[in-house]
Amino acid sequence: MLGGSFDPIHTGHLVIAQVALELLEADEVRWIPVGQQPLKVGQHLASGRHRARMVELATAGQPRFTVDRAEIDRPGPSYTVDTLKDLRGRYPGAAISVLLGGDAAASFTAWKAPEEIRTMAEIVVFARAGELPPAGIADRIIPVPRIDISSTAVRERVRHGRSIRYWVPDAVAEYITQHGLYRD
Amino acid sequence: MLGGSFDPIHTGHLVIAQVALELLEADEVRWIPVGQQPLKVGQHLASGRHRARMVELATAGQPRFTVDRAEIDRPGPSYTVDTLKDLRGRYPGAAISVLLGGDAAASFTAWKAPEEIRTMAEIVVFARAGELPPAGIADRIIPVPRIDISSTAVRERVRHGRSIRYWVPDAVAEYITQHGLYRD
Repeated sequence: MLGGSFDPIHTGHLVIAQVALELLEADEVRWIPVGQQPLKVGQHLASGRHRARMVELATAGQPRFTVDRAEIDRPGPSYTVDTLKDLRGRYPGAAISVLLGGDAAASFTAWKAPEEIRTMAEIVVFARAGELPPAGIADRIIPVPRIDISSTAVRERVRHGRSIRYWVPDAVAEYITQHGLYRD
Repeated sequence: MLGGSFDPIHTGHLVIAQVALELLEADEVRWIPVGQQPLKVGQHLASGRHRARMVELATAGQPRFTVDRAEIDRPGPSYTVDTLKDLRGRYPGAAISVLLGGDAAASFTAWKAPEEIRTMAEIVVFARAGELPPAGIADRIIPVPRIDISSTAVRERVRHGRSIRYWVPDAVAEYITQHGLYRD
């Protein structure tokens, strides 16, 4: 599972998810947009519905990318431990990896029930060239290219009226324009 | 002018060209695929026609990106000094910048007639976060995001049968498949 705000999803997410799919030899990467960030309350600028829709648009052409609205649809803060219980209920016997970027890995010990998470899933941490992930978190580290595209930069560009072509897939750029997202 | 092999053009080129367009407040970025690399003879894996076509497909939606086949159509090694003379003949009075990545900037003094190039154009060098361009080359340095996508990596992925979705625009991925480029 690849959780995140995806506010919005961008090319960097997509390149790295594709690398993860291949290196892990996984059946799928399941994208799970966060409903409500426990550690960053109220920071989402687009609604869960919009964020999930953009992930769907961005991943539409890759059948091994699936989008899961479990956290969007669940009221209250989104805890990964709850999502894992839900996934294990829906997919008994599936081997699950939790994919984390360096920032998420650094805050992992502050998450709800990290040890319980570990009993249910393998923790995979992305390591960008030249960066070392925090010690003691990862069951497995996978090297990924460094791509300095961020959701924050995409939102800034929209706010300043700049093009986000190439920062996000075309369908996502169109969606942002159509729905007037991130204007201010 | 943004010269390069573009073998093939990829998302990193496109993001950086867009940044350059904005920071330079240029009327256009003119993409000029190299016909024959003077310093790396015989290293192109796709023909000039294919490389130029992929640049056209990738840039089709951005009216301020134009593609110029001057070097592809000129026989013999492609020298920037010749291209600049050609451009000045076609666009008298236009202010021209030559855009260089760090590698190209490092080899600039080995190019044909670097001092003559300087009399005709401003030399702009891209500096990725954490990197300093070689001294004494740039008239102007512009900061660009670091995006570890390379044409070499794209070709490797094609050769290994991996997806290049997100590494290159969809139209370019389709073109590579249709024409069987980079298979071996």
